[in-house]
Amino acid sequence: MSIAVFRFEMSGPGDCSALLRILKAIDVETVSRVAIIAKTEGPATVNDFGRALAMQAIRAALGQAGVTAPAQVILSMGCEGIISPGGYCLVDSRDAAAGIDGLAMGMASSEPMTPADLVNDQHIEATRATVERAIEDAGIAVDQVAVVFAKSPLLTHAMAVGLSAEQQRRANRSSSARAAAALGIGLALGEIDANLACSAAIDESPALYSHRAMVFSGTETDRVEIIVLGNRGSGPKPVRSGLFADLIDLDGMARIVAGNVTDPIGAVRRMTSNDAIAAVFMKAGFASDGKMRGNRTTVFASDLEPDKHMRAVASGVIGALLGDTRMFVSGGAEHQAPAGGGVLAVIFNNPVHHD
Amino acid sequence: MSIAVFRFEMSGPGDCSALLRILKAIDVETVSRVAIIAKTEGPATVNDFGRALAMQAIRAALGQAGVTAPAQVILSMGCEGIISPGGYCLVDSRDAAAGIDGLAMGMASSEPMTPADLVNDQHIEATRATVERAIEDAGIAVDQVAVVFAKSPLLTHAMAVGLSAEQQRRANRSSSARAAAALGIGLALGEIDANLACSAAIDESPALYSHRAMVFSGTETDRVEIIVLGNRGSGPKPVRSGLFADLIDLDGMARIVAGNVTDPIGAVRRMTSNDAIAAVFMKAGFASDGKMRGNRTTVFASDLEPDKHMRAVASGVIGALLGDTRMFVSGGAEHQAPAGGGVLAVIFNNPVHHD
Amino acid sequence: MSIAVFRFEMSGPGDCSALLRILKAIDVETVSRVAIIAKTEGPATVNDFGRALAMQAIRAALGQAGVTAPAQVILSMGCEGIISPGGYCLVDSRDAAAGIDGLAMGMASSEPMTPADLVNDQHIEATRATVERAIEDAGIAVDQVAVVFAKSPLLTHAMAVGLSAEQQRRANRSSSARAAAALGIGLALGEIDANLACSAAIDESPALYSHRAMVFSGTETDRVEIIVLGNRGSGPKPVRSGLFADLIDLDGMARIVAGNVTDPIGAVRRMTSNDAIAAVFMKAGFASDGKMRGNRTTVFASDLEPDKHMRAVASGVIGALLGDTRMFVSGGAEHQAPAGGGVLAVIFNNPVHHD
Amino acid sequence: MSIAVFRFEMSGPGDCSALLRILKAIDVETVSRVAIIAKTEGPATVNDFGRALAMQAIRAALGQAGVTAPAQVILSMGCEGIISPGGYCLVDSRDAAAGIDGLAMGMASSEPMTPADLVNDQHIEATRATVERAIEDAGIAVDQVAVVFAKSPLLTHAMAVGLSAEQQRRANRSSSARAAAALGIGLALGEIDANLACSAAIDESPALYSHRAMVFSGTETDRVEIIVLGNRGSGPKPVRSGLFADLIDLDGMARIVAGNVTDPIGAVRRMTSNDAIAAVFMKAGFASDGKMRGNRTTVFASDLEPDKHMRAVASGVIGALLGDTRMFVSGGAEHQAPAGGGVLAVIFNNPVHHD
Repeated sequence: MSIAVFRFEMSGPGDCSALLRILKAIDVETVSRVAIIAKTEGPATVNDFGRALAMQAIRAALGQAGVTAPAQVILSMGCEGIISPGGYCLVDSRDAAAGIDGLAMGMASSEPMTPADLVNDQHIEATRATVERAIEDAGIAVDQVAVVFAKSPLLTHAMAVGLSAEQQRRANRSSSARAAAALGIGLALGEIDANLACSAAIDESPALYSHRAMVFSGTETDRVEIIVLGNRGSGPKPVRSGLFADLIDLDGMARIVAGNVTDPIGAVRRMTSNDAIAAVFMKAGFASDGKMRGNRTTVFASDLEPDKHMRAVASGVIGALLGDTRMFVSGGAEHQAPAGGGVLAVIFNNPVHHD
Repeated sequence: MSIAVFRFEMSGPGDCSALLRILKAIDVETVSRVAIIAKTEGPATVNDFGRALAMQAIRAALGQAGVTAPAQVILSMGCEGIISPGGYCLVDSRDAAAGIDGLAMGMASSEPMTPADLVNDQHIEATRATVERAIEDAGIAVDQVAVVFAKSPLLTHAMAVGLSAEQQRRANRSSSARAAAALGIGLALGEIDANLACSAAIDESPALYSHRAMVFSGTETDRVEIIVLGNRGSGPKPVRSGLFADLIDLDGMARIVAGNVTDPIGAVRRMTSNDAIAAVFMKAGFASDGKMRGNRTTVFASDLEPDKHMRAVASGVIGALLGDTRMFVSGGAEHQAPAGGGVLAVIFNNPVHHD
Repeated sequence: MSIAVFRFEMSGPGDCSALLRILKAIDVETVSRVAIIAKTEGPATVNDFGRALAMQAIRAALGQAGVTAPAQVILSMGCEGIISPGGYCLVDSRDAAAGIDGLAMGMASSEPMTPADLVNDQHIEATRATVERAIEDAGIAVDQVAVVFAKSPLLTHAMAVGLSAEQQRRANRSSSARAAAALGIGLALGEIDANLACSAAIDESPALYSHRAMVFSGTETDRVEIIVLGNRGSGPKPVRSGLFADLIDLDGMARIVAGNVTDPIGAVRRMTSNDAIAAVFMKAGFASDGKMRGNRTTVFASDLEPDKHMRAVASGVIGALLGDTRMFVSGGAEHQAPAGGGVLAVIFNNPVHHD
Repeated sequence: MSIAVFRFEMSGPGDCSALLRILKAIDVETVSRVAIIAKTEGPATVNDFGRALAMQAIRAALGQAGVTAPAQVILSMGCEGIISPGGYCLVDSRDAAAGIDGLAMGMASSEPMTPADLVNDQHIEATRATVERAIEDAGIAVDQVAVVFAKSPLLTHAMAVGLSAEQQRRANRSSSARAAAALGIGLALGEIDANLACSAAIDESPALYSHRAMVFSGTETDRVEIIVLGNRGSGPKPVRSGLFADLIDLDGMARIVAGNVTDPIGAVRRMTSNDAIAAVFMKAGFASDGKMRGNRTTVFASDLEPDKHMRAVASGVIGALLGDTRMFVSGGAEHQAPAGGGVLAVIFNNPVHHD
């Protein structure tokens, strides 16, 4: 196993020419798995069909390049602010020279889930089990896991007909679907007590959270799909993650990237000028009262969806820290961070010890 | 002259209760002038009537508090991102104890302007002359001016009927109105060559810019209205301003606030923890090709108005720098900064030398 | 009692100059009550402050005209399509010559309601009792009532804390607030069985509906406010109402206006060319599956709020029928019409028998 | 030549399953040409990628069905109001039994056009010449033409660099592109004087208009593409078109459908109950002052694009007339109808004489 990380830009949701060039440049014979994690531009409304267009383009690029290895794709809508549309392609190949030293990747998918299995104990449990299989697939121990990406089915109103009152209340709520999966990840990682990570906690117990989860939900899948990234061996860590306190916690973000050094922002500056960073992933949350450090914002009280405010703000902060706009930023950090906080994960090109 | 600076929060465009409390706490008999510069929340669409509601509420608060001194009001729409709706009230009074040492304020308005006088040489010239009168009113020299706020009339399509082709092309364009006023400010401040600051430069010569201008335009006024802030005497400067290179130029912004020190971000941190900052004003621009440091963004290619992206991003960056969301951030920096850059101005509670 | 009906146009939510001219032209000494029912333009988003501006302007116009009689105001947001912003002013005066023969108006308000009294049996009961008082106030019998306008409090999430699960589920839902009030009206008018018009029916029993209700909800009131219009005596009816089957039920709408004649559309044409119509009110609903006569629409599956689609469509249909855009059209007909249908009410200047 | 007309519904822009079923049911060997004219749902913003998805799906359906004959596709974005997403497929085949008696169709495309050839005399002339070729292709005389559909290139700001001031002013304006093509159609049909149909008239002379044009513009093509529909022979006319005065001109629309009969609305009712109508196309305009029959609307003064208001209103009116929502409605009738008016065209299944 040798995991290489590539960044590709997109001029629109249907443009995977840069991804195709990357795929064509590698020896597909040696490839055993591919993960693609990308941001798609568009209005992110119920009638935004950019995601479908992007998914077709990605599948077409994989086909044109002759990639027959299994590929998992996570697409997140919305490039508000200064997010550059594009994504990351992680390739697992037998070509050891291509990959980043020590970077481990694992994948797994649950069986197809019925509506009755969603946003409840079964959803949590299915996620837990799938994460454990993905960690095993990565060939690392639980404490070597840096970040777990999860895509979860969404229970729609139509699917919820006849289900429990609890499930009906959680229908059409991405937040509930993400919450269930996040609790399952926390369970698998030993971060949340098994007695507490249950259906009753969904949407209700913000104090329960994983420290290494990024969860997405959508109607395009009927299974929990997991991608695990972690660090193999005892060398410098190629992938790091951590939690920040709120969207303007610049020092917290800098310490996740640079480690617990005296001048973390300065250290990040030195890293970026050395082109040390291969990929950046962020999950952003916001305090449910709409306040930031005690003062009112309009994040939950405007014509814009809260996620649009959050993605734009996050893009500015992380962009200012890294001096770069090529990033993956997504909103909704239920049970993935303390209330109002979020998750940041970074992959390094040439990892060095820096703790 | 003694200028005091107050911050007030608003729970909605019609809520000036906090402003009223401030006004009631001062001895209005001693007040000679008031300036109010505020952000109003709302969709910032053509049918956003929050500005009218806010203007009524501000005028009502001034009336209720018995303020009879002249008052100039600048309202900017849009609190996207984490901008806390609210504003600053600057009060010029004979009560020397109330004010910030060394802070100077001047005001002036042009005569009413006819449509024929807009977005052309006359517009530039009227602004220049009004700025000069405001500087004189402030009792400072040109090189003591820190920032010039200007509100300019907007030439609408209806007003442009029968005017020159150039004016018709510039009709309904806030950017053109701001450009004309900014050129006039640059002229008054000796920053732009008088031969170049002419109608032909409007929208065309981004290399011509003032270094200390923040310009707004709207149909609610038929005159150029100017507020000048500056530093009197030779003591530490209570108001500082400067240009930053782009919206993620965190170090540039930090140096404007903290001066040219070794670790400007760290210096800003120390200032904010000492509650040193009384007011923050930002004018944000974006490169017209929609790129940030070479990479594509969707700022000019999405369902959101470009200003919404810009305000949200700027609020994140300045919020992360200062650890605070109570700020004035507005978009549109035509001839107020180099292409893609912007202006930042800060008033300090207890100014110290820090250059 | 003599009820005069005036139409006024608005150039923006803050413009009540036309209303003021009407009020100034009447002898306010003779006025005992005023009802104002108007459409306010604006984005109809959570941060649309046009309603507050319009309410201020209406109250200011009443004050400037010296109207001291009680005034009830119903403002509905959104003039999508071809709805002309503006409204109707109904004036009850002792000046018999001013009014429309036989037109009756009654008003009543409930006591202030606590959150615990909302979207449940108490809400229904309070509405029933208030409607009965308003009918009594109008001095007519139940079967003489043509239309009941109701403004109801809205239970917000914040208000619902600690209340029943049922109430929490109905919190922030205008539809639930409207449903409760509509059931109460149906009860008062003897249209809905007292055993069925209970909390359990709210949002659940579309087959229960009043035939003469138009209900609005908002956070600006804590009481149920009722305006009843009806026909006094045995002469021709000055106000008529009825239900139509769906938004394109042109013949159904025509029959409500013209009566059960052979060529209802032709009859409406003759009425409008004689300037016979004084006021038009419509409440529009849409089938919850988003289908119209068996075919899919995007009313519930687009970037636009469903109400925006509905108001625009309704404005086209009623505009085409009447050849006029000065109308009151509002969305949300829960328990006010069969599923997918709506209510239309018309006041005539010179009523004639036409049944 | 025998032209068959099929209607297909779409559950989303990427769903052409109904179109595929139609194509699979015909003998593709006999097909010589295909025209597809469809409405695509979506926000119709600059970042609405539904059109690209729909175009892919249509091309894929044609491919899957083995259609190798030339196919022209016109996609119009936006299904506001009650427009059912879907379209019409017109198939020209040698299978005479399949087609509608007397219906003629012609197609032609210009050579690729350079930016210098757009929104000026050359644009008008290229359209005229292409329309003439399409009429010839249809095998009918000019006075047998019922409607000319045109898709025109759009001159973007980027393309206009270095071109004439006139072209730069018209850059990025769909209305100018549509205007140029409409003038060319009017010229080809002998409806506009050759001396008047010139560049100077574009956007300036609303009194010049074709009576049988429906024009669309977009960046997806660099040529003028024409589809002509008309009536062959002297039998009853299978396709009729006409102009209506404004969006609520119900009688005018009815007369276009039913002919100049005593009770046109009643006549339309009888036609629709007999399933007589195969296809409905509408181009809707609005008076540039935003007024409808003397009263103000918010069509040009709201958060919604004017076209969204117009499409929704038009869908209501035509839906009410026909009792059906399966229609093609598009906005922008520059030089295609008098100011404020529009074009309606209808294809009948079993044409009868009705003039």
